[in-house]
Amino acid sequence: MHPRTIPTAIVAALVLLAALARADDPLPSWNDGPSKRAILAFVAKVAKEGSPDFVPPAERVAVFDNDGTLWSEQPVYFQFAFAIDRVKAMADKHPEWKEKQPFKAVLDNDLKTALAGGEKAIVELVMATHTGMTTDEFHETVLDWVKTARHPRFKRPYTDLVYQPMLELLAHLRANGFKTFIVSGGGIEFMRPWVEKVYGIPPEQVVGSSGKLKYEVRDGKPVLVKLPEVNLIDDGPGKPVGIQQHIGRWPVMCFGNSDGDLQMLQYTTAGPGPRFGLIVHHTDAEREWAYDRDSHVGKLNKALDDAPKSGWVVTDMKKEWKVIYPFQK
Amino acid sequence: MHPRTIPTAIVAALVLLAALARADDPLPSWNDGPSKRAILAFVAKVAKEGSPDFVPPAERVAVFDNDGTLWSEQPVYFQFAFAIDRVKAMADKHPEWKEKQPFKAVLDNDLKTALAGGEKAIVELVMATHTGMTTDEFHETVLDWVKTARHPRFKRPYTDLVYQPMLELLAHLRANGFKTFIVSGGGIEFMRPWVEKVYGIPPEQVVGSSGKLKYEVRDGKPVLVKLPEVNLIDDGPGKPVGIQQHIGRWPVMCFGNSDGDLQMLQYTTAGPGPRFGLIVHHTDAEREWAYDRDSHVGKLNKALDDAPKSGWVVTDMKKEWKVIYPFQK
Repeated sequence: MHPRTIPTAIVAALVLLAALARADDPLPSWNDGPSKRAILAFVAKVAKEGSPDFVPPAERVAVFDNDGTLWSEQPVYFQFAFAIDRVKAMADKHPEWKEKQPFKAVLDNDLKTALAGGEKAIVELVMATHTGMTTDEFHETVLDWVKTARHPRFKRPYTDLVYQPMLELLAHLRANGFKTFIVSGGGIEFMRPWVEKVYGIPPEQVVGSSGKLKYEVRDGKPVLVKLPEVNLIDDGPGKPVGIQQHIGRWPVMCFGNSDGDLQMLQYTTAGPGPRFGLIVHHTDAEREWAYDRDSHVGKLNKALDDAPKSGWVVTDMKKEWKVIYPFQK
Repeated sequence: MHPRTIPTAIVAALVLLAALARADDPLPSWNDGPSKRAILAFVAKVAKEGSPDFVPPAERVAVFDNDGTLWSEQPVYFQFAFAIDRVKAMADKHPEWKEKQPFKAVLDNDLKTALAGGEKAIVELVMATHTGMTTDEFHETVLDWVKTARHPRFKRPYTDLVYQPMLELLAHLRANGFKTFIVSGGGIEFMRPWVEKVYGIPPEQVVGSSGKLKYEVRDGKPVLVKLPEVNLIDDGPGKPVGIQQHIGRWPVMCFGNSDGDLQMLQYTTAGPGPRFGLIVHHTDAEREWAYDRDSHVGKLNKALDDAPKSGWVVTDMKKEWKVIYPFQK
């Protein structure tokens, strides 16, 4: 035997063992911390036939907030960045916007003034950019934006800024018979065009804020027109409403990151039998952003206070996530 | 060889062949007619990889009306029978109903007078019996009714009056990768408690008329309260709206039986690529009911007129269905 054979074999065996360990780990981007242990233990017990905590596959529903839970939401909600880009793209057809707030400020790249109008200004920007067209036209516009727009900090498509650890979690839940749903304050029609490709979540498993629609036949072709009337604000107390309207089952697991997810966390974990709630806590200013109680986006106050007594897991992004985005792997 | 061995073997072989033929037939309760042939051919071509008409599994969405398409709807919509039974059950707590129409007429078993108030009367009866409680309470009430109420003609639970050929069709579509959805004018909360068991359709795949909901915490327990405000009337032009709001994909196959399904049929079959529309035509007064153009329930006029030019299959129940209900098998 050549003297170097044995060490080589040992090295090869170790490499193989490491690979096997990785292969066995459904959440390789999660450090071995309290969140990962809690997730793995919960999924194992509800998916195990004969376990006292067994949940039949049909009832394995997991709901995920989107902004700040599955992808980033800073410096502004990505859908708001879309609305701003749309105002600019549509400005030629709306010469009146040059003199009219909040449009004028958006066209002047003066976001502070645009947002000074508060919720009313935001609603105006959203209505102007999200309604009046057919759902198919809007779908194409969103897809085009997803392809061409770049995030100001990372200079990448916004859909690159999804969380690698959450992608692994979604896959792990599905591998264990869970149906994964998005339940987001964001627009249902804004998410559906791309979430299937990015998260593996089909459009019929997306719950979000929505406007009224109108059925019409235009030139012999049926279309659905997006009306400037609110149908559902799927945020805060609207999230359990959205869950009931769209899913009609009590979720077993719930993932959020802000006070907008408070009622969804309450509702999910009040269900009978084993329930799981988790809050993604943005603690990593270097790799992502650090914010909670005083943030203008994704404010996290009451849900953070309630977490210990409600048994919700709080994930410290900085400590518990090995990587944030897929492109950092 | 014993002289009787050969005939016995032949008989045994024939019995076996007949059993195999049945086993190979996914729609044994459908006679070999135009509907069955059209369904089998369509499903085969869209599910066959490499076929020019191949549809990826994720896009295989089939939508079914409920009343008159999956179960009977005579002499009144079954949900209306439920509302009437509820008025009677709740009358003790509403002494004022003894003097107030349409409640008085219902309590007097005078359906004609009760319905004389038209849509307004129906809405009053539905609001009084379908709102004001939590979704969980309503769920239990519906389940209890499904167990105890009996259809006046067949003296059986209403859920026995589902169509055996359609149960086979649902199973055949699912076996070929379709997701099966209900898209009904009936109440979403009225259907969800029992459709999973009866049709194999989970609550999250039920689209229906719905009311507004309100999230509340009562005695520390989160509940959703059913409000007396309409959210969606999922009928006629409301059906494509319900499809877009809940599913967010263009259906590939659509099954209905009345003009309330007209727009859903139009919308589905206007989609790109292979599309399929079918109308269940109630032609069997003996085994079920015969009605179409002048019926007060399930009126079928324009959709029947449009069927030939739109390429929708019209299923003649009397000729094409071997059995109607599972209990007749």
